[in-house]
Amino acid sequence: MKMKTSEVLLRICSVLVLVLTACLVGLDTQTKRFTFFERKATFRDLQALSILVDVASVAAGYNLLQLIRCSVLSARFDVNWKGSHIYLAWVCFLLDQIAIYITFAANSAALQASLLSLTGAKDFQWMKLCNTFTRFCFQIGGGLLSGFSACLLMAAMSSISAFNLFRLYSPKRFLFLK
Amino acid sequence: MKMKTSEVLLRICSVLVLVLTACLVGLDTQTKRFTFFERKATFRDLQALSILVDVASVAAGYNLLQLIRCSVLSARFDVNWKGSHIYLAWVCFLLDQIAIYITFAANSAALQASLLSLTGAKDFQWMKLCNTFTRFCFQIGGGLLSGFSACLLMAAMSSISAFNLFRLYSPKRFLFLK
Repeated sequence: MKMKTSEVLLRICSVLVLVLTACLVGLDTQTKRFTFFERKATFRDLQALSILVDVASVAAGYNLLQLIRCSVLSARFDVNWKGSHIYLAWVCFLLDQIAIYITFAANSAALQASLLSLTGAKDFQWMKLCNTFTRFCFQIGGGLLSGFSACLLMAAMSSISAFNLFRLYSPKRFLFLK
Repeated sequence: MKMKTSEVLLRICSVLVLVLTACLVGLDTQTKRFTFFERKATFRDLQALSILVDVASVAAGYNLLQLIRCSVLSARFDVNWKGSHIYLAWVCFLLDQIAIYITFAANSAALQASLLSLTGAKDFQWMKLCNTFTRFCFQIGGGLLSGFSACLLMAAMSSISAFNLFRLYSPKRFLFLK
């Protein structure tokens, strides 16, 4: 019972944090007026950021679906866990693993691209951009911070789904159900 | 017993693949002669690549230590798994999780930085670099491929360490040992 509550809580939190990430990054714009032209910075300028927005939205949707699964199926399946419950546990475990790794990769890539925008790369003649668009960069930083908190929550959740799956197996014999 | 064999095999493979990654990226250089000057490309030019080399080396060392742990401690601890074995399983599980996430983050960041070098970023006036240093870029690509295979191996290994830990727990009661 405690397990179920913590899973539901973690999933609700990660949905909220993922939506926050997508909003912080996706709604971030700053317009700067130079002497001869105007330049607007959005998340579409950097491919890694637009991928992050997409991935965070999809991951939030996935966790929402899992929440529905938790509330609908748990009551029916908890009783006879040896039957179809084991397949459900395997599916949840694999999907959770895929979700956390994809979200984590998108966050790491976005962090790397943002760091390059912040520091530039002298050897490559890539110039810094954050001295021009400071407020924009701070908001992206906030988005990345909330993205990594979402990863932490999802990693905890994937451990719980691993726990739910593997405790069905025997401690003595390999892949043998209890 | 099968479990142990597959864990040892996975760890040996991932040590080899991680060393291959570090060598492919770390030993990659290309010198190009322009009209007035000479330019040498190494992995030190891009911070993400030098971080990847460091992380791959440390991860290979970690997996080597875990291999030694497997061969030394397994015989002694397998008999009375309810005592100190549970602490060892928790430590292995947590360390494996940390190792895979750090390796995966380093790989994703290096992939993002390499993609930026390959495509450039028009909005930012960041120029492409791989049309000049083609062979260098191909070798980095090979290094990243082997880095992601190492991640796959380490993800499988972290699932095994989760299996080894969580199957010690009861399927009916939360965090209750069998």
